[in-house]
Amino acid sequence: MEVVNLGLGDASYSIYIGAGLLDDGALLRRYIHGRQVLIVTNTNIAPLYLERLQAALGDLNVGTVVLPDGEQFKTLASLDIVLTGLLEGHHNRATTLIALGGGVVGDITGFAAACYQRGVAFIQVPTTLLAQVDSSVGGKTAVNHPLGKNMIGAFHQPQAVIIDPESLQSLPKRELIAGMAEVIKHGALADREYFEWLERHMDQLLALDLELMSEAIKRSCEIKADIVSRDEKELGVRALLNFGHTFGHAIETGMGYGAWLHGEAVGAGMVMAAALSARLGLCSAADSQRLAALIARVGLPVVPPPALKGEFLSLMSRDKKMTDKGLKLVLLSGLGQAILVDDVDAMDLQAIING
Amino acid sequence: MEVVNLGLGDASYSIYIGAGLLDDGALLRRYIHGRQVLIVTNTNIAPLYLERLQAALGDLNVGTVVLPDGEQFKTLASLDIVLTGLLEGHHNRATTLIALGGGVVGDITGFAAACYQRGVAFIQVPTTLLAQVDSSVGGKTAVNHPLGKNMIGAFHQPQAVIIDPESLQSLPKRELIAGMAEVIKHGALADREYFEWLERHMDQLLALDLELMSEAIKRSCEIKADIVSRDEKELGVRALLNFGHTFGHAIETGMGYGAWLHGEAVGAGMVMAAALSARLGLCSAADSQRLAALIARVGLPVVPPPALKGEFLSLMSRDKKMTDKGLKLVLLSGLGQAILVDDVDAMDLQAIING
Repeated sequence: MEVVNLGLGDASYSIYIGAGLLDDGALLRRYIHGRQVLIVTNTNIAPLYLERLQAALGDLNVGTVVLPDGEQFKTLASLDIVLTGLLEGHHNRATTLIALGGGVVGDITGFAAACYQRGVAFIQVPTTLLAQVDSSVGGKTAVNHPLGKNMIGAFHQPQAVIIDPESLQSLPKRELIAGMAEVIKHGALADREYFEWLERHMDQLLALDLELMSEAIKRSCEIKADIVSRDEKELGVRALLNFGHTFGHAIETGMGYGAWLHGEAVGAGMVMAAALSARLGLCSAADSQRLAALIARVGLPVVPPPALKGEFLSLMSRDKKMTDKGLKLVLLSGLGQAILVDDVDAMDLQAIING
Repeated sequence: MEVVNLGLGDASYSIYIGAGLLDDGALLRRYIHGRQVLIVTNTNIAPLYLERLQAALGDLNVGTVVLPDGEQFKTLASLDIVLTGLLEGHHNRATTLIALGGGVVGDITGFAAACYQRGVAFIQVPTTLLAQVDSSVGGKTAVNHPLGKNMIGAFHQPQAVIIDPESLQSLPKRELIAGMAEVIKHGALADREYFEWLERHMDQLLALDLELMSEAIKRSCEIKADIVSRDEKELGVRALLNFGHTFGHAIETGMGYGAWLHGEAVGAGMVMAAALSARLGLCSAADSQRLAALIARVGLPVVPPPALKGEFLSLMSRDKKMTDKGLKLVLLSGLGQAILVDDVDAMDLQAIING
């Protein structure tokens, strides 16, 4: 078992990575302080892992909420389903929610924990690569609004993140590939050596070599934990983790949630951000192309949907990274080195959108 | 103008009390850091004060959301209306929400500010007595759920609370009286001298003597600010502010939101809590009766609806104050001195419910 610690004062916690952790009741129970537990999962994950997790929790008072599967259900309505489950089960402030599933389940469950009785505990048990390397770590919780992604949410840190890489064996290939976008992102924004390691081992990672995959998950969590511990509320450096995301969110919003997977949109978004970085002379064309090549190689899209060209700028301006001073973008000064740029010219941006 | 400071480290803020403050644009703008403002109010308050507040904000980019009036609209659906208003107006993270109205408007607006883009700024401009002395101070925000009051919310402190006691002149008498329940509560739980001052001046207060009313608002805000500054997240002493509320919430939930005003339910709830305190020998029967007498004198109910007797205990057990160890109740060891008791016998409780 590998452990990555996320230092955040009183809100510090550990991320555990190891095959078989889904059955490790002793580890789970270390982070459950009351008698009540509500497992939140979805129709896709429940038949695969719900019984095992329930068994690991033994004689605790365990309720379950099974949500429909998909980004299109990451809504206030789904939040309401979880909250209703808590109230119907008479859960009190000492309850613990467990998010068993991917990023959507984790984000909804975390937000439900943030606002149920103004805040209760929760544990992340991510089962998708995207959630394991990214969304389950760092305490960002949210649901979508028809007018914008992740617009309704809270910063609410979990008690622990428990990652069983074996769960990736049941993950559809398309989702594995989408999760790889965030893995590549971590190398691109913070660690050139890691990026190069990914280039060398990508075939084995996509073939689900569990040892290498655990290593990648650990390194990605370390990079994310390091940045989050320096800036929990995203007032500064944490914004770097949004590399590719302002472009990506525009694609997701424009296409309607679920048409493109989040990771797919981030894949194309990173290619756009890198191309813009090169156009502005911030990084070399070689680095930009090398990033695009790895993204293409894993099977992620590298260009945005042509149908969105006309409205792309307007879609981007709805993003949370929009300030009174204009759009703040994360760009690259080279592979492994992201920077925040807040005065990007709309003409340059449009040139990248036009491709 | 009177000022009460609420010390909470980085989240500290001031409560301003003064006739005419609704028009004090300079004061308001001290707490608005971006160009965007969204005023949230209701159909009742908008015709009375919205234009004046808009005028005070001058050339800022000011949007408005006007909600239907009433506790029954303190829902996730109303939250969604505010969030949609923010998104349709393209509000960014530097925006400021202003809650113009009573407790319902303040609670919804505060929660919208807490979760819009994971947290933006807001200012409380309370126009009801209940909001001025209680709900606008302390950062508790929430909406109701059909299964429980204030079950969905966040701790989110405002930038400032700006109180214009002249706004009480347009307040229906029934709501003025309901607000007086929280004023009496502050005396009963924390300050016997204040309670006695209220006994002496209650007729003038109900006749809206603005000088005495400002004094009462100030003293109530001081008591609340003192307690909140010692325990923002209600892990201990802040629970004392819930005196009368566990009983009161049971009445509100049992009757359906809006049938009884919050203050009315709290009025009867305080009488029940004091009677229980006397029954348990914690405070004198004289103190309990004296509290009941003042509550009756302002015109608040002193007994719960008889129809709820059968389900009252079960309604109470849904309250947030329920823990794994049982129901935690705020009782009195005397007028001006509340205490937390967490092992109340159900038989004693039922005796009080039976009356």
